[in-house]
Amino acid sequence: MSPTTQSAYSQLEDVVGCKWSVSVLRAIAEGVSRPGALERHVQGISTKVLSERLRKLTSYGLLAKQVYAEVPPRTEYSLTENGQKLVRIIDQLKLLDVEIKRTET
Amino acid sequence: MSPTTQSAYSQLEDVVGCKWSVSVLRAIAEGVSRPGALERHVQGISTKVLSERLRKLTSYGLLAKQVYAEVPPRTEYSLTENGQKLVRIIDQLKLLDVEIKRTET
Repeated sequence: MSPTTQSAYSQLEDVVGCKWSVSVLRAIAEGVSRPGALERHVQGISTKVLSERLRKLTSYGLLAKQVYAEVPPRTEYSLTENGQKLVRIIDQLKLLDVEIKRTET
Repeated sequence: MSPTTQSAYSQLEDVVGCKWSVSVLRAIAEGVSRPGALERHVQGISTKVLSERLRKLTSYGLLAKQVYAEVPPRTEYSLTENGQKLVRIIDQLKLLDVEIKRTET
């Protein structure tokens, strides 16, 4: 079988193509940093999907996880430098999406 | 059911999240403009998937289609202004993807 096309950005493809990942990144960019608050902020996301996305985005180096040794322990997420770069790209996609819909109607 | 999160860029989500759409856009950006040449250039893409993606990308206003009344008729695709904007964003995603893989290892 002839070699098939690889994705131009294999790791980011399933991030930018996933509304939950994008919504979680944008919420954290807006300062929502704790899992409980994220679940309330990103409407419709389940606890399972949220924790999967947080784990994936952290493993990709887009989020940093901070655990505070309190009782109960407090966990906070923040954007890494690469996470901030991605959110800026996502914002460009959002503007272009509005532009495309505007020129279509 | 509580309202669920909408995609930040509903139309572009399935473009940037699809390796075939991204590969077709990048090939056209490199000057490969005719369907036959695109099918050879984007390795592994089927005729059916290629024509679907060309139709979708054109309907989104990302590609312009030009048909020349020759025998047989000649068809060429080019990036619209929005198409060029998207390719620039895709290039940023590609660079960030390389950066993420670099910082992971």
